[in-house]
Amino acid sequence: MVREHCDRTTALVNESSQLVLAGHVEPQDDLRAERKRASFSSQELAVVLNGGTEVLQRRSRLISQLQSTSWGSQAAVSQRCFHSREQLHVEGLVAQTEIWKLMQSGALSQQDAKDMETLLTLPGGLTLHQYMFIPTIETQGDEEQQAYWLPKARALEITGAYAQTEMGHGTFVRGLETTATYDRASEEFIIHSPALSSIKWWPGGLGKTATHCIMLARLIINSKDHGLHPFVMQIRDLHTHLPLAGVRVGDIGPKFGYNGVDNGYLMLDRVRIPRRAMLMRHARVTPDGHYFPPSAENAKATYGTMVAIRALLVDEAGWVLARATTIAVRYTAIRRQTSERVGDKELQVLDYQNLAATLLPLVASAYALIFMGKASSDMYKRFEQDRDAGNLASLPELHVLLAGMKALSTWTAADGIEACRRGCGGHGYSALSGLPDLYASYVQNVTLEGDNNVMSLQTARHLVKSQEAVAKGRRVEGSAAYLQRAEQELHRKCSVQAPQDWQTAEVLDAALRHRATYLAAEGHKLLLRHGGGKINFAGPDWNGNTVQLIHMAQAHSQLVLHTTFAQSVHQADLEPAARAALIKLVALHGMSLLLRDLQDLFMDGYLQAFQAQMLVQRRNELLLELRPDAVALVDSFGIADYQLNSCLGRSDGDVYRALLEAASGQQLNKTEEGPAWNAVLKPWLDPASRQQARSKL
Amino acid sequence: MVREHCDRTTALVNESSQLVLAGHVEPQDDLRAERKRASFSSQELAVVLNGGTEVLQRRSRLISQLQSTSWGSQAAVSQRCFHSREQLHVEGLVAQTEIWKLMQSGALSQQDAKDMETLLTLPGGLTLHQYMFIPTIETQGDEEQQAYWLPKARALEITGAYAQTEMGHGTFVRGLETTATYDRASEEFIIHSPALSSIKWWPGGLGKTATHCIMLARLIINSKDHGLHPFVMQIRDLHTHLPLAGVRVGDIGPKFGYNGVDNGYLMLDRVRIPRRAMLMRHARVTPDGHYFPPSAENAKATYGTMVAIRALLVDEAGWVLARATTIAVRYTAIRRQTSERVGDKELQVLDYQNLAATLLPLVASAYALIFMGKASSDMYKRFEQDRDAGNLASLPELHVLLAGMKALSTWTAADGIEACRRGCGGHGYSALSGLPDLYASYVQNVTLEGDNNVMSLQTARHLVKSQEAVAKGRRVEGSAAYLQRAEQELHRKCSVQAPQDWQTAEVLDAALRHRATYLAAEGHKLLLRHGGGKINFAGPDWNGNTVQLIHMAQAHSQLVLHTTFAQSVHQADLEPAARAALIKLVALHGMSLLLRDLQDLFMDGYLQAFQAQMLVQRRNELLLELRPDAVALVDSFGIADYQLNSCLGRSDGDVYRALLEAASGQQLNKTEEGPAWNAVLKPWLDPASRQQARSKL
Repeated sequence: MVREHCDRTTALVNESSQLVLAGHVEPQDDLRAERKRASFSSQELAVVLNGGTEVLQRRSRLISQLQSTSWGSQAAVSQRCFHSREQLHVEGLVAQTEIWKLMQSGALSQQDAKDMETLLTLPGGLTLHQYMFIPTIETQGDEEQQAYWLPKARALEITGAYAQTEMGHGTFVRGLETTATYDRASEEFIIHSPALSSIKWWPGGLGKTATHCIMLARLIINSKDHGLHPFVMQIRDLHTHLPLAGVRVGDIGPKFGYNGVDNGYLMLDRVRIPRRAMLMRHARVTPDGHYFPPSAENAKATYGTMVAIRALLVDEAGWVLARATTIAVRYTAIRRQTSERVGDKELQVLDYQNLAATLLPLVASAYALIFMGKASSDMYKRFEQDRDAGNLASLPELHVLLAGMKALSTWTAADGIEACRRGCGGHGYSALSGLPDLYASYVQNVTLEGDNNVMSLQTARHLVKSQEAVAKGRRVEGSAAYLQRAEQELHRKCSVQAPQDWQTAEVLDAALRHRATYLAAEGHKLLLRHGGGKINFAGPDWNGNTVQLIHMAQAHSQLVLHTTFAQSVHQADLEPAARAALIKLVALHGMSLLLRDLQDLFMDGYLQAFQAQMLVQRRNELLLELRPDAVALVDSFGIADYQLNSCLGRSDGDVYRALLEAASGQQLNKTEEGPAWNAVLKPWLDPASRQQARSKL
Repeated sequence: MVREHCDRTTALVNESSQLVLAGHVEPQDDLRAERKRASFSSQELAVVLNGGTEVLQRRSRLISQLQSTSWGSQAAVSQRCFHSREQLHVEGLVAQTEIWKLMQSGALSQQDAKDMETLLTLPGGLTLHQYMFIPTIETQGDEEQQAYWLPKARALEITGAYAQTEMGHGTFVRGLETTATYDRASEEFIIHSPALSSIKWWPGGLGKTATHCIMLARLIINSKDHGLHPFVMQIRDLHTHLPLAGVRVGDIGPKFGYNGVDNGYLMLDRVRIPRRAMLMRHARVTPDGHYFPPSAENAKATYGTMVAIRALLVDEAGWVLARATTIAVRYTAIRRQTSERVGDKELQVLDYQNLAATLLPLVASAYALIFMGKASSDMYKRFEQDRDAGNLASLPELHVLLAGMKALSTWTAADGIEACRRGCGGHGYSALSGLPDLYASYVQNVTLEGDNNVMSLQTARHLVKSQEAVAKGRRVEGSAAYLQRAEQELHRKCSVQAPQDWQTAEVLDAALRHRATYLAAEGHKLLLRHGGGKINFAGPDWNGNTVQLIHMAQAHSQLVLHTTFAQSVHQADLEPAARAALIKLVALHGMSLLLRDLQDLFMDGYLQAFQAQMLVQRRNELLLELRPDAVALVDSFGIADYQLNSCLGRSDGDVYRALLEAASGQQLNKTEEGPAWNAVLKPWLDPASRQQARSKL
């Protein structure tokens, strides 16, 4: 009887299931089919993009090593999104100290150790110790100071933060308010926070990890302000880790993302440090209070570090966007939604034009930024060689180029990640997709290391000055050299007569160059409106036109980015099929840039409406042409599942099983009845508890 | 000697402080000055915007009540950003059950209880019980079913979720796969999840709270699929809260935001429920398996609920954006950054054009959406009256209007919050600003209750059909009525001859209407390209042109939004100075909409370049004209500090002290040495521990 009942149930349910699942496609099958129809080999392209098979092999080796540890295994990494800030903070330090140990033992080279940390994507309290504290002593300490501090720092007997940003000032470094007043009587500096706004706020690792910091403070001797100088300052007792007298230090609280790091605050009440705590390689203060400023050359060289960091940020932007697009493209290729009739095969959502038009240009941007990152680091390496030969001539160009490019690349990556996240629909909202944390942790890059608007304005300033130079008949070199031909350029018109004309590199370059030239000329005019022919770069004309000036700088950076992308593809060692796909991707990149601000090209009559329509048409065709290669293009980034750490982006496509498994195992599901049952829900829901409560009344 | 040393220290430090702080302005003074220079009274405008003094007084009363509780005080609310998911989940349920208790005791009306929950902004596991479980039984249960379920649900003897969305399907509701197979032999339904993709996934409160759910499943009788129907289904034992046999249920894991709610999964293995568990007010299944479908009227009426929710979402979007802009405008009015010389007063960052051009149009959008929200709910109320009188004629118009408007308003609010967050610079990245959680918790609205792209396409479909109707000589009513004059409109040109012409309502309306008409006509043409004069709304022509179709729908919604805003200001009971300011805000709103997609107006020659330049110029002037009223405009939203829950947005401007206090008190600062000291850092940093480790070797 029971048996019969069971059989009936099974039969009924099976019949229904067959009815409902008629058009069902397994996600793994979808990804397999996508890979089969690609026009080129993603393995081969991955080698080119990553800089050689050795790089990929080395990465695999490091991932294997990580997998064999308790703190770096895939299992550990995938648990992170369930953890509290306190846990993340401790876990970050565990991983960093374990890597440090491997490095000390010789099991890892310094570069391996750095790369391992990058693979872990778990920033911790020691990151700034490695990337700012030690390097600052190396570049700004004199020999004696280096000999004193570096061995301790490298042995991790002390850990340091870089205490620059204050509550009231970040990008505008000159506005920092912490004072270092020299007391000649005791030969000491008195470090002091004169106002709430002067409290150090944000430095990574400063909150709970650092025993020391590089303190950036205004050097004041005999009531004369010599501006910011770096000091090495101890803030915590080495035996107890408690703050020293006069020091108030702590963590600034949770952030949008990046919560493993203890960004800190530091408030100082007349704390004395010895004269030799000031890093004296370039500037010096003698015992009797004489101040020797750094040479102009040295002052310049120190902003080489800033430039180097920006080159890294451009490179990072490309790879971060590569991660996000890998997740989104793979997932939208298996996500099926909507059919005309129930039971029909549904459409892959990447086949909806709006998703393709969002995601494929972002794939193009990721490629463009990766190539731009390579070009930037090459430029920086050339500068280093020149610098070591005593030649700093290329620094100003590198500086302005990377200022605007830092802004363009971090904006593109941040907005791109979020577009990828939204493109994944509801599941993009789940932490298990990996995208919420990727966005929330990455987006700080649009304000850190120089706010993007301010960075763009630095490039704008250079463009305006270049135009002034051209007007005075001086030669302009570097990325803004095209402004020399502004007069001819402004008379040009777009030559497009058929949709496919937009595909040619010359046409796209010409349009982007025309746009940059036109906007630069307009920006220049705006600034000359008042002031009698003289431009005041800090006056109301400047501050009152920043919208256009930022736009102009970004148009310039887009031109540089696009031409660098095109050139890099041209020069890269690619098999013909991959080259053909990338050439299309370059075209999509240029078209997308133009379409985003098409009004610019109408303003001086460069573009006509029929040409704009052809641009849209060609872009739409290109989306369809690139669609079969979409998955191969993201596979070619060569990002391992370990790095993606995403249920949606996994390379085998088995996303729904992954979501269920990841969710089932988490903390909130530790007990079946959940953490609110006993104390909160039971008194209402459990009939016995209700009965009891009633009888008590 | 010691005394002398101290005196010297104090003197030196004081001197330095004076030197450095010469141009310092206290943030509170900045806000006071901003309020003094406003052209109108924000108190009076707040009364108008909020719908009367009683509304504001009632809100104050509810906030006072909340303040007097342990779970709803400002202190409790401000701690939330430090808490884990498990804590948030329990806290949310504590607050909701306490409010329920107050309501049951008669201390709160049902409306008060709802408003109190809104003020708390802590969504919990019972939200869907109130907003979906109970209402669904009310509208879809027959009398006997209502009499059985509602008393239990209202007494909180059971709690319910709304189990619709599945892993594989959300917005495309017809694709849901869970089956409810009728077994005539036992007069039961067998509820079953036939595939991974059919697991219920996302429903709020389903994970750990709900004992029951409304199960949306395909009704299958004798191998015939009758589509989705709602069933009331018990999933957990009332005594133990453990899942019933055949039920696998749990929380889906952390999300970008909204982490107090236990969004859940539910997987069913042939679970039997009685025939009468199907809600049978409209459709019915008899014991012998005969199916009676709902009447066409009833089927229509049920999607009235969907429309009502979208009207609420429009209203919510306005108020959420009001919160974000209140924080950002107040903070950028006190944040000072950059002066030409150290010691000079620095510039308020809101005086940089790029920030004003970001934030002031968002303030305008918040006003526009608040007025649109009022208009939407008025429309819905009129529909309800008509419906109760048996007239459903206005439903289709309401449906398409709100589909596109839901998309426009939630996109505007989500992107607006994030722009506000970035506008606050580094501090906008701190959770203490209130903005990260506001964004992360809000942004789900762009996918939930109908994905925004799909919503826009529904409006696009209506616009295309309206044009078909016009072509056939039929009359088009409602918001798309302007399409009847498309032929004349497409020949019009912009009439602007001077910058101030852009300020007139007629010119802005005309331009927005022209744009919408032009895009609708272009969209229509695209769909007619293939298919021989017949449009296939699900074919490749449709799916392959969704970029333009979504753009067209959004242009239509922008037109409706803008004209509703202008009309509402015109009709509102305002004092002259406030009216003057709002008329400027309306103009800024229209100009900002046009500037965002200016290329559209060039495409058919409507706009000339000199007119575009005048538009930019007038917009820039308007930003300066509105700047003195910026703080008053956000003060007029009347949002209490309790609701803002933001260190940056507080009405007294004392932001830096607030940041320091909030950060100092948090978990990670509970001990001075921090949670990583003993286990991780001490062995490296403490000399005694190092010594010990070395001696052990």
